[in-house]
Amino acid sequence: MTSLSDLPIRDDLRGRTPYGAPQKVVPVALNVNENTHPVPEDVAADIVARVAVAVTGVNRYPDREFTELREAFARYLGHGLTAEQVWAANGSNEVLQHILQAFGGPGRSLLGFAPTYSMYPLLASGTGTGWIAAGRDAEFELSPETAAAAVREHDPDIVILCSPNNPTGTPLSLDTVEAVYAAARGIVIVDEAYAEFMPEGEPSALTLLPGRERLLVSRTMSKAFAFAGARVGYLAADPAVVDALRLVRLPYHLSAITQAAALGALAHSDEMLAMVGEIRAQRDRLVVELAELGYLPHCSGSNFVLFGGVDDPHAVFEALLERGVLIRDVGIPHHLRVTAGTETETTAFLEALRALGRPSGAVPAGAQSVSSQS
Amino acid sequence: MTSLSDLPIRDDLRGRTPYGAPQKVVPVALNVNENTHPVPEDVAADIVARVAVAVTGVNRYPDREFTELREAFARYLGHGLTAEQVWAANGSNEVLQHILQAFGGPGRSLLGFAPTYSMYPLLASGTGTGWIAAGRDAEFELSPETAAAAVREHDPDIVILCSPNNPTGTPLSLDTVEAVYAAARGIVIVDEAYAEFMPEGEPSALTLLPGRERLLVSRTMSKAFAFAGARVGYLAADPAVVDALRLVRLPYHLSAITQAAALGALAHSDEMLAMVGEIRAQRDRLVVELAELGYLPHCSGSNFVLFGGVDDPHAVFEALLERGVLIRDVGIPHHLRVTAGTETETTAFLEALRALGRPSGAVPAGAQSVSSQS
Repeated sequence: MTSLSDLPIRDDLRGRTPYGAPQKVVPVALNVNENTHPVPEDVAADIVARVAVAVTGVNRYPDREFTELREAFARYLGHGLTAEQVWAANGSNEVLQHILQAFGGPGRSLLGFAPTYSMYPLLASGTGTGWIAAGRDAEFELSPETAAAAVREHDPDIVILCSPNNPTGTPLSLDTVEAVYAAARGIVIVDEAYAEFMPEGEPSALTLLPGRERLLVSRTMSKAFAFAGARVGYLAADPAVVDALRLVRLPYHLSAITQAAALGALAHSDEMLAMVGEIRAQRDRLVVELAELGYLPHCSGSNFVLFGGVDDPHAVFEALLERGVLIRDVGIPHHLRVTAGTETETTAFLEALRALGRPSGAVPAGAQSVSSQS
Repeated sequence: MTSLSDLPIRDDLRGRTPYGAPQKVVPVALNVNENTHPVPEDVAADIVARVAVAVTGVNRYPDREFTELREAFARYLGHGLTAEQVWAANGSNEVLQHILQAFGGPGRSLLGFAPTYSMYPLLASGTGTGWIAAGRDAEFELSPETAAAAVREHDPDIVILCSPNNPTGTPLSLDTVEAVYAAARGIVIVDEAYAEFMPEGEPSALTLLPGRERLLVSRTMSKAFAFAGARVGYLAADPAVVDALRLVRLPYHLSAITQAAALGALAHSDEMLAMVGEIRAQRDRLVVELAELGYLPHCSGSNFVLFGGVDDPHAVFEALLERGVLIRDVGIPHHLRVTAGTETETTAFLEALRALGRPSGAVPAGAQSVSSQS
């Protein structure tokens, strides 16, 4: 039998394993920061009706410019944005890939602030872009000074800021975005995949777009919009940036069915986002109750909570899985990450964790610079 | 206003324009080799019913391994193939991109035989892979000797054979595939996007897969399957090749909705492919009638016909467009390409062309090495 190593794959891929959290069927899946609330029935019906129309013409190629969808995203985002400033692709990962293909690549570099979304270095590698992992302040915070100093030191072609940050949940201030933009000569991406879970009224980096033609704000429908299975990510930026992305996208990259489904969801954005408040409440409950259980949850502006004080993350992960609760070991020592589910799911997680007994305290709070008392 | 050239895009992208045929709304669109027959109503209804089920769980990420879909493709392809040998992506362009990311990239090369599918050099460029355009024999044929000699001369990392070839329609013999495989040290892709339009019983390169672990056969649902709008391409190869593609695909690249729609179409493959015979008949009719009109159509195993003897392709293209018929100028001097449509569409094209008058004969057949009397 032929094995992977017998094939002429690229040298930098040798010995690698595919990216991805384990896909297991469990009663309570809180591992990949999905929105665990299904799409409301009336919205689902409208989405299906629109897909039915698209299927009647599916023998033809889709609108390569997905104009109607870009208009709908511009309306949804507000801030005076127009369709010319919007881009979309099959998941925000593909949006980021387009950015790296246009502005990164061999001989160029992408800088992020670790620990951060683990796809960033993989997307860099997949496009031949160098990856630079700069550090964060205590509690995974990122001050304007720290961030700008890293940009000045490494002089990257692209900077990516995850706001709020995954997997730590840490909110990012617009001051930091402004400082990074001022320090950078190249592209600055603010990945706002989880932005809708920030406290109501908190400003988005979208407000910083005017006059900043190198600033790109990416979003996704996977999280707040409960649309992870539909694979739709999008971006707002200067129209010239959108022109650049057109040069690298595969023609007709967004299917007619994807365009129809996304338009259906966007037509009901209020209803689709109605569960965001409930998810925020469960997140805040996780922070409170995890602390009561003796763990060290970090401040989160997202739909998940990273918590420290875990002696043996692997053992806790497995013990929860035995109880039908799947969470995520993100590779940060003594930490685990859990998605805020429905009230029932969140309760199931907390009760399963409680049943494991209090953490031993072998890792006292004072000894752990990365933990937080939030 | 910021322009593209003000942005720090990659140097190799400067001055480029986005790929893509003009998207115009016309009564008779025969420009991008679509299947102009819509999906049958009962099949469309089943597709929509399956999408409706997928939408109920669309808040969750899709099956990253798209196992059910790979099984369905294996059954459809036959030849004893199993799901482990199947890969799929958003259009065969993305399948090819995955191949280039895994086996090509900086310092590596892709060789094709021009004129051929114009996305090949663009996909090479997008992945940093060098592009080598080798030549063809008279009449756009590609003999085993010519092809193997080019492989030996250029020693590429990847060879791509388009069978039948786009934009010329030229069938490719399996002898050439075997000779190229024997001469190549690296990956050999046979792009069978149009294979279903070959004469019934003509063997596919799928028959050559056993014992050839570097051979990859790519297909698409865009053409014979009348599914261009759904963006589904796929591939059969050794399971180790599929393992390699897993290393470069973006996680969850195929949406739950795309998977459901493709499964619906595959469940009715007989019905979906029922119009293939009719399309072949219209293609053969195009070859006969174009010759009667004084043009020089080339032999085609595809759903389109390239024809020579056109004094001024731009003028003919525009004159047809004025009459509501859109075809394609593929950049081959004195040639145009037309897709075989329904009987009505094909008639409309031929009548519009007839109305332009006979070609002047300024380019006599004898003076044109690339033309054919087929």
